[in-house]
Amino acid sequence: MGHVIEPDPAKTVPLGFRLAGVHCGIKSDPEKEDLGLILLDRPAVAAGVYTQNKFAAAPVVLDRSRTPSNSIRAVVINSGNANACTGDRGIADAERMCLEVASACDIDPGEVLVLSTGVIGQFLPIDAIAAGITRTAANLADDASAIAAAARAMLTTDTKTKTVERHWRGGSLLGMAKGAAMIGPKMATMLGVVLTDVAIDPEMAQRLLRQAVDESFHCVHVDGHTSTNDSVLFLASGAANVAVETPEDVEQFGQLLTESCTSLARSIPDDGEGANHLITIHVRGCESSSAARKIAHTVADSPLVKTAIAGNDPNWGRIVSAAGYADVPFDPEKLELRLNGQLLFCGATPTDFSEREVSDSMRSNRETLIELHFGEGSAEARFWTSDLTEEYVRLNADYRT
Amino acid sequence: MGHVIEPDPAKTVPLGFRLAGVHCGIKSDPEKEDLGLILLDRPAVAAGVYTQNKFAAAPVVLDRSRTPSNSIRAVVINSGNANACTGDRGIADAERMCLEVASACDIDPGEVLVLSTGVIGQFLPIDAIAAGITRTAANLADDASAIAAAARAMLTTDTKTKTVERHWRGGSLLGMAKGAAMIGPKMATMLGVVLTDVAIDPEMAQRLLRQAVDESFHCVHVDGHTSTNDSVLFLASGAANVAVETPEDVEQFGQLLTESCTSLARSIPDDGEGANHLITIHVRGCESSSAARKIAHTVADSPLVKTAIAGNDPNWGRIVSAAGYADVPFDPEKLELRLNGQLLFCGATPTDFSEREVSDSMRSNRETLIELHFGEGSAEARFWTSDLTEEYVRLNADYRT
Repeated sequence: MGHVIEPDPAKTVPLGFRLAGVHCGIKSDPEKEDLGLILLDRPAVAAGVYTQNKFAAAPVVLDRSRTPSNSIRAVVINSGNANACTGDRGIADAERMCLEVASACDIDPGEVLVLSTGVIGQFLPIDAIAAGITRTAANLADDASAIAAAARAMLTTDTKTKTVERHWRGGSLLGMAKGAAMIGPKMATMLGVVLTDVAIDPEMAQRLLRQAVDESFHCVHVDGHTSTNDSVLFLASGAANVAVETPEDVEQFGQLLTESCTSLARSIPDDGEGANHLITIHVRGCESSSAARKIAHTVADSPLVKTAIAGNDPNWGRIVSAAGYADVPFDPEKLELRLNGQLLFCGATPTDFSEREVSDSMRSNRETLIELHFGEGSAEARFWTSDLTEEYVRLNADYRT
Repeated sequence: MGHVIEPDPAKTVPLGFRLAGVHCGIKSDPEKEDLGLILLDRPAVAAGVYTQNKFAAAPVVLDRSRTPSNSIRAVVINSGNANACTGDRGIADAERMCLEVASACDIDPGEVLVLSTGVIGQFLPIDAIAAGITRTAANLADDASAIAAAARAMLTTDTKTKTVERHWRGGSLLGMAKGAAMIGPKMATMLGVVLTDVAIDPEMAQRLLRQAVDESFHCVHVDGHTSTNDSVLFLASGAANVAVETPEDVEQFGQLLTESCTSLARSIPDDGEGANHLITIHVRGCESSSAARKIAHTVADSPLVKTAIAGNDPNWGRIVSAAGYADVPFDPEKLELRLNGQLLFCGATPTDFSEREVSDSMRSNRETLIELHFGEGSAEARFWTSDLTEEYVRLNADYRT
């Protein structure tokens, strides 16, 4: 328990990458970066997992057609405007960003990926972005301040950057993410980028990324809103002297990637708008992984559970009844519910726990742990969400003036 | 548009029924009825539709085993305590309520149905309820004040009673409902009771009720929480000189029942906790009814849509992107979105509507109408929900002291 330990700000750029972040004029505050660039010394492996929303934004359409790949040289990222619901002009604008990067960095436009996040339904200020791309290309570096600038350049309403750094044998891995719910005015998106200098082939990169995202970003549920722009990219330069080759490598590196994505994913609801609690929902003892996920998702989706936790209320009734309508068969008699480690419910009836004690433990911890054990099998799932506070509603209901 | 017109308080009790409502001591306020009784002169047809929650409350378990039926004599209703998650003792308490009604009214205990709503996980104050049943039996009447007392006896956090009255040929129909979201402290439930003196056989009653509930109560979405106690009962005394016999009768009476249930169902989100807007989501032009329902449900479930409407913000981006993740295939180019009649989005891009004008129309109307037309077919669905306000969160997060 206790407050979530933030990983140390990442300081190491994997070999073969350089980064930059500048202000180009999309955000009104000139102190805030809104354009980032990641450049590779040579063509690299890239994999991507994208939103399933029918209104996929222009950059998603473009990236989807270019991954998996073994010849990506750059990723350009803008915040403040999602380039979503922008029709043909949106696609043209995304392609123009690639052209500008190609021209500034002397690479091929087809070797560039694009990420955008921000307002939906407005056209990009493409000339300002083009000018910004020239400046980011001139600012590329491989030090800690370049990481920080690039990480800030992808933020919208986030209150802090989200980075992770891991090492494997002689290689390193650097991850960055943004996301703090999909919010107004018409903001969108969770974005993630993971860079490594470990060598891996494109199909394996795609498979391990898919698996990592399934257990991390796909288990984060803030407001249930799959945005038009959600994207996670994974780039491998292969510049370190280490490769993912044997089945054991695959297992180990896959775990490292999943763990890195999990660290980034958890930081999103932890930084959720108005959030006072990061909630972990751990469902165990199910017959299948899909059953466990369905229940965890249903509990994470319940505004009644999330308001109760905002109020430090150990309201077991809302939690077990949410599990009860998840459309998964189970024997209510076998369910055990624990909240912050205390048994609240078993044998289909509440225990005689001390409400005051459990409430105090909720009040004094930023993290709340909900554990549901169904006694039906051995499958499990873990979801993360944030509590639902008056501040969340205030942030999301404020009319744009 | 305009404020929802409340139906006139119902004044006619269908032939063959008598009603009463008293305070028996479950609610702390002695001015508030918490026990209701509906008695039939002779055995009647009864149908029921119940919660699918795995933690179905004791009264639901009991009623489910007794409907459809052609020999029901009474319904006893208590508010303030849901008798849910109460194990074997809960079942015994529900049966004891039937016994007390049987003894007070000189009928068979197996002819009684039970509805409960309120706190989950606490045992009923069964002796107080038993004493109350004797008093309700002595107060039975068939006038408007009996309707009002019985309607009040089923309320929990509702701010007003919900009734509907309709006539068909020489017969009449009276409906009552309660529900204002599932709220704290550990409150549950939507309840509905529809009484008629039209004659109908049990299987047809069950079929028409199922159909009516599918298009009304099942299309109401306040917080997504299927409670432990949700129940709708339909009782037909057959005491009026009119029967549902021909296919045309079935069609007409079925429509009447659906319309009555729709009127009651809409009044639930309209009286939602902290609600400032009743939101109607009308999805048309889909390939199938289930596709239309899935989309309407997904939009109704989005806290981002619901907070935007609380802020009178015509945030089309949140609405179309919610439709986009409903897991229903459609061509984004063909979607048209209207808000309070104004076209906001078509051809996968926003129109140049006046935000100020649409916002003003939202501000000056309690009802907000969201229309989505997909141009894929002719199926449609209508869902109702309420907006998500800071007051909702405050009501649901307040810790019980």
